[in-house]
Parts: sequence; C-alpha cells; structure tokens
Amino acid sequence: MKISVLGTGMVGNAIGTRLLALGHEVMMGSRTATNEKAKAWVASAGNKASNGTYETAAAFADKFVINCGNGQHTLDILKQAGASNLKGKILIDIANPLDFSEGMPPFLSVCNKDSLGEQVQKLLPETKVIKSLNTLNCNFMLNPALLAGDHVIFMSGNDDAAKGEYLAFLNTCGWKSTQVFDLGDIKTARGTEMLLPVWLSIYQKLGTPNFNFGIVK
Amino acid sequence: MKISVLGTGMVGNAIGTRLLALGHEVMMGSRTATNEKAKAWVASAGNKASNGTYETAAAFADKFVINCGNGQHTLDILKQAGASNLKGKILIDIANPLDFSEGMPPFLSVCNKDSLGEQVQKLLPETKVIKSLNTLNCNFMLNPALLAGDHVIFMSGNDDAAKGEYLAFLNTCGWKSTQVFDLGDIKTARGTEMLLPVWLSIYQKLGTPNFNFGIVK
Repeated sequence: MKISVLGTGMVGNAIGTRLLALGHEVMMGSRTATNEKAKAWVASAGNKASNGTYETAAAFADKFVINCGNGQHTLDILKQAGASNLKGKILIDIANPLDFSEGMPPFLSVCNKDSLGEQVQKLLPETKVIKSLNTLNCNFMLNPALLAGDHVIFMSGNDDAAKGEYLAFLNTCGWKSTQVFDLGDIKTARGTEMLLPVWLSIYQKLGTPNFNFGIVK
Repeated sequence: MKISVLGTGMVGNAIGTRLLALGHEVMMGSRTATNEKAKAWVASAGNKASNGTYETAAAFADKFVINCGNGQHTLDILKQAGASNLKGKILIDIANPLDFSEGMPPFLSVCNKDSLGEQVQKLLPETKVIKSLNTLNCNFMLNPALLAGDHVIFMSGNDDAAKGEYLAFLNTCGWKSTQVFDLGDIKTARGTEMLLPVWLSIYQKLGTPNFNFGIVK
C-alpha cells in the first residue's frame, strides 16, 4: 500500500521504517518539503521512501495516514494536510496531548471530558479517525513480536468497517486479533490518552520504555 | 492486626471479609454506628468483626486504615474519621474520584494536575497515605491468586518505610513483590486514578470486571 506518515520525529521514523520493511511505499510528511530530517530518512530508507509536505503526503496515501506528530501540533498538522486530502481515508492517530511546558511530569492539554482523538474526528468529519498505538513505545507499535507475551493495544473509532480494515492491517504487522481491543467509539480515546501518566511513571520506574500493558483474565 | 475499613459498600465488604479470612480483626466504619449495612456485615462475619463510626474505626486500627468509601465523599469521610485518630497510621486509599452525575461514562472530578490521593495526603499531613488497589476489582485487591498470571498493582506514597510495611502486608495477602509497582510519591496517584476510564471501557468490552492489568517486558 501507499501509506503516509505525518511527522519526522522518533515515532515517524520508527513507523516509516517498519512500514518499508513490511513492503509498503511510504511518504513522510512535514511542514516543508525540504525538511532535513525527512530528507535524511529518505536517503537512508531506500527507493520506496519519499517525503513531502503534510498536504502532499496526505494526498499520496491510498488508504492509511498515520499521524505521528506531536500532540500539541496535531490539529495544526492536520489542517495543513487538508481535509480534502484526508477525505474517506483512515487516519490512525498515535499522538498524545502531552504538554511538557511546566516540566516533568507532563500533563495532558485535553482529557477527562474530551480527548485529542475526538478533536481530530471533529476537525475531519469525512475521515475515519482511529485512535490507536498511543499506549506503547514506537518500536513495538507495528512490531509486537519484539516483546514476548500477550501484550495489548487498543483502538477507538466511530467506523466499524474502518476498524475492521485496520485490524487486518495490524495482523500483517504481527498483532494477533486477541491482542487488539476495540474499546468502542472515538470517545473511548479519552481512556487510552489518560493512560500516559501511569505509562510515564512505569517507564521512569523500570528505566526503559521496553514494556507494554497486558490484560490478565 | 486490628485493621479498619471505612465504607460499607461492595469494596468495603469484600476487603473486610478478606481481611477476616486472613486472620485480622476488622472494624467497619460508617457515618453512624447503627448503619444497617455495617451491622448486617458484622452479623454474618463472625466474632472478629465489629462496626462503628468513622471516628471509632479510625481509632481502632493499630496500623492500617483502608479507605473504601466513595471517591466523591472521601475527604468528608476522612474529616469525620478525624486527623488525630489517623495520625501516624498508614491510610490505604482505594477510592477513585469518579463522578457519575452526568451519566455513563463517568468523568473524574479531579485529575491531570491533581489527584484524590494528593488531596487526602494534604488533608492528613501526619498520616502516611498510600494510594493503591484502585486499579482492579475489589475481589482481587487482597486476593490476587484468583486471577492467573502476573497481573500487577501500583502504590504511590511519600513515606518509603510505610510503603515497605504495606508491601509486607500485601505479601501476606498473596501478592508477590514482583507484582507490586512502587510508582513513587503521592503525585503518581494521578496516573493510577486516570487509569479508570480505560479500565471501565475494558470492563464494558469484556462484560466482566474479572481482569487486571499486567506489565509485559
């Protein structure tokens, strides 16, 4: 598939590189088409990798666009990408609305009665927004076999057919269907975004981000 | 030990009954000494069970007081229990600040930059407050063997010696030390209280509260 990754940071790099390994064509989107980090990634990533503006990248995708941007910039990034370029597509929103402006630990700039996932869906009513992959380290997001054991991810979204297509995609990445929890509509993104504070405490306690949540029954 | 349980609801009942099975003397505290639910519990629970006001119960405990009250009433309950009766003791705060006043799903009446755990510690500066057990069903709180697998609980508190005593108590309940995550000071209670929205979504998805979080490494 032709998949777009919005964002040139650690998450965008990890996701983009993994998508290439899975055989997809990947365009990395950023504010400008001359972004140095995006160009460096393309130079190292081979001929199925390209880069462009958020707008170009959103148009490039045939089905999936993955928002790997900073949570504080996500709405702005998606406005630049353009509603018409994202119309009818599935937007996987990985971003968490973490605000580090008051130091550590960060707080959430939106939570409790709203979520970034809901704000994204509201901004893009004709896009199928799925909040997912925001509760684990980027190295494991599309490569679950790197952690032993039945760890889990979540998804929240309003469109059941889109969630079905996304689950099929996750299966190709190595996720067993039993490891993927469809929590319900996009409002349930509140819950996974609010997992971040305890995730950060566990990270600090363990001294490594190499862990994930499991559900023990 | 002489342990007090504040609250007569499902959580107080489960915790009180389990403490008796572990050989402790238990006083259940409530707003009045004639509370019907507390008296019914005592009548069914045998001669090591008693009940009284929050104040009487707090005074009864030799070391541990367990707050099993509703999160919306917790500060009021603890004011009634009395700072002098709780002074020097270890208060295990299980309550979550869930507010159901706007229907389902509930929201948190405090979160993000503050937590109920912190408010309790601020109210009772001479009590060693430990936020714990607030992230799983009450039947498993002091009886982890009812769930197979290495599920986990968390603790947050400012007093390391008190957390050590609490861990030793948890071991007597069946928790292995490797299943107990000391997240840090009481501020980290924000993270575990903010786990509740996703916990409730998973509960709804599974159709049962019989699960708990694990940490997969």
